[in-house]
Amino acid sequence: MDLPLVLAQPREAVLAEMRAVVADRPLPIYAMARYALGWIEADGGPRSDPAGKGIRPALAVLAGRAIDPSDAAGRRALAGAAAVEFVHNFSLVHDDIQDRDDERHHRPTVWRVWGEAQAINVGDSLRELAQSALSRAREAGASAGTVLAAADTLNRCTMEMIEGQYLDLDFESRRAVGADDYLTMVERKTGALLGCSLALGALLAGGDRGVAARLEHAGRCLGLAFQIRDDVLGIWGDSSATGKSSDNDIRRRKKSFPIVHALEQTAAPEHAALARVYAAHDGAPVGDEDVRAVTSALDALDARAASERAAGAHYDGFLAALADCGLRAEGRAALEEAGRFIVRREH
Amino acid sequence: MDLPLVLAQPREAVLAEMRAVVADRPLPIYAMARYALGWIEADGGPRSDPAGKGIRPALAVLAGRAIDPSDAAGRRALAGAAAVEFVHNFSLVHDDIQDRDDERHHRPTVWRVWGEAQAINVGDSLRELAQSALSRAREAGASAGTVLAAADTLNRCTMEMIEGQYLDLDFESRRAVGADDYLTMVERKTGALLGCSLALGALLAGGDRGVAARLEHAGRCLGLAFQIRDDVLGIWGDSSATGKSSDNDIRRRKKSFPIVHALEQTAAPEHAALARVYAAHDGAPVGDEDVRAVTSALDALDARAASERAAGAHYDGFLAALADCGLRAEGRAALEEAGRFIVRREH
Repeated sequence: MDLPLVLAQPREAVLAEMRAVVADRPLPIYAMARYALGWIEADGGPRSDPAGKGIRPALAVLAGRAIDPSDAAGRRALAGAAAVEFVHNFSLVHDDIQDRDDERHHRPTVWRVWGEAQAINVGDSLRELAQSALSRAREAGASAGTVLAAADTLNRCTMEMIEGQYLDLDFESRRAVGADDYLTMVERKTGALLGCSLALGALLAGGDRGVAARLEHAGRCLGLAFQIRDDVLGIWGDSSATGKSSDNDIRRRKKSFPIVHALEQTAAPEHAALARVYAAHDGAPVGDEDVRAVTSALDALDARAASERAAGAHYDGFLAALADCGLRAEGRAALEEAGRFIVRREH
Repeated sequence: MDLPLVLAQPREAVLAEMRAVVADRPLPIYAMARYALGWIEADGGPRSDPAGKGIRPALAVLAGRAIDPSDAAGRRALAGAAAVEFVHNFSLVHDDIQDRDDERHHRPTVWRVWGEAQAINVGDSLRELAQSALSRAREAGASAGTVLAAADTLNRCTMEMIEGQYLDLDFESRRAVGADDYLTMVERKTGALLGCSLALGALLAGGDRGVAARLEHAGRCLGLAFQIRDDVLGIWGDSSATGKSSDNDIRRRKKSFPIVHALEQTAAPEHAALARVYAAHDGAPVGDEDVRAVTSALDALDARAASERAAGAHYDGFLAALADCGLRAEGRAALEEAGRFIVRREH
């Protein structure tokens, strides 16, 4: 995986921190959690290929360093990094049940291996592991007030993430979803946890609450850029790089940013073809001809360029918010590099 | 509902506290959460009939009073009371999906009304509301260290509750479940949250961690007594009082305490009939004749009296643990009265 060094470098420490949280829990539900986290195979065997890019915990670590590069601050920030990664995985396990997804990171999803009922428990347990992870900041020297502020931030952002998932499912059954609705949903579903990652890293490293709030805002902007980039890759990405079929999003009638953007151009002649495919509520499969009609409508409506402009604008918002945080120059540059990868990545 | 005054009296204050936590959240997912909590009907209309007995929050309030009967301590304990009741409802919403239950408190379950996918979100949101509820103790004057200790207790006990649910589902597919396995499961699934209720009330009212730990142990004993009583009512209860069909547990092959106890008596002649019904893994329905065979085997094996003795022994454990907490006499008497109701109730 060609992650930039700023994102790849924190991986080992984050993984060690997360393993320390799960350690010594023998019940098989924790083996299921380890599988979900990509640490082991379903049969309990070791796994070397890491699951996920670890963007959220890396952002927490980088935000911590941008506040205070000392080892002591780094250890405290790691607790927040582990917490956001557990929350992210909690959401993935539940999302996969909700979306009936069979695979994630090229492996069967938790519900496909152990059934829906236990997968609900596995997701629930990952949310608790997040709180347990955060508590370890206290042992690493953070004050009770700081850890509590971090727990409140994690709670508030996790709630928004759940609201975003509620809205995302709700949109599937609604005809009219505008670009504004979409961005409201994405800021919650993706933005809140990226914001939380930066805020937790800053808070635990010793940053004040004002800086944490501004970094949270920066992370929300980055989350919007991240998701719009994801949506672009979901339609025009190279399937060998993304690991997903390139027309999967269209076949699932996913109302992603390029689609809602194009659907808003009701006066254009291509609109009717697009609306016809996305308005179908009878569950009729999207055929090859429909896929071609959608992609040619998107091309005619300039949806890709418009999506990339939107992602760029949110990335600019991220940069502007970062500039307003009084961060160390080196730390800020690392966060900018991480953000640049996120909006330009090909997978 | 003929709740004793010690359990009924805290209801209004607990409800007001919980409503304050959910207030001002307009998204429809919170209407679903209010429905789950029994506050409104599915169409949004008001509901007067309360859902649930509110045993857990009442225990938190009573534990708080047994430490410090002042209004200020009571306000802090209320935050813990609301938190445990949100966690309890989080578990009910997810359990109903897992068990495919159609009704709870005489109303369709959340997943039956809004589908499984949104019901998963509703359960997840109730877990977050618990953490939000706990945070309000800070505004009521608790120190950050105290609220963090309470959050850690809530986290640890919620994790055990999830482990208990994991084990409960796992037992359904296992042939050999002994009484010890069963009690290990129940201490997690039911005991941990009752223990948490007492511990949180005590901690937030100003009790030290040693007292909170002993009260947590008392609550775990009470939880075991509570569940065994529930199991007895599930087989021999008056269905007009419990609101459940009296042979429902048998028809679902639920391995409740009387059953696992009777199944351990392998030398008895009645064992074979019992084992035949409970060993069937082909999903064949339990017929009227099977129900009669099970109840007569349970009678012959003295399963009801043995269950009541077991519940009584755990209740005695609860009383002994309470006596060891240095509580105010009046507060301890109220907790004893609450416990007495829990092991003797008819519904």
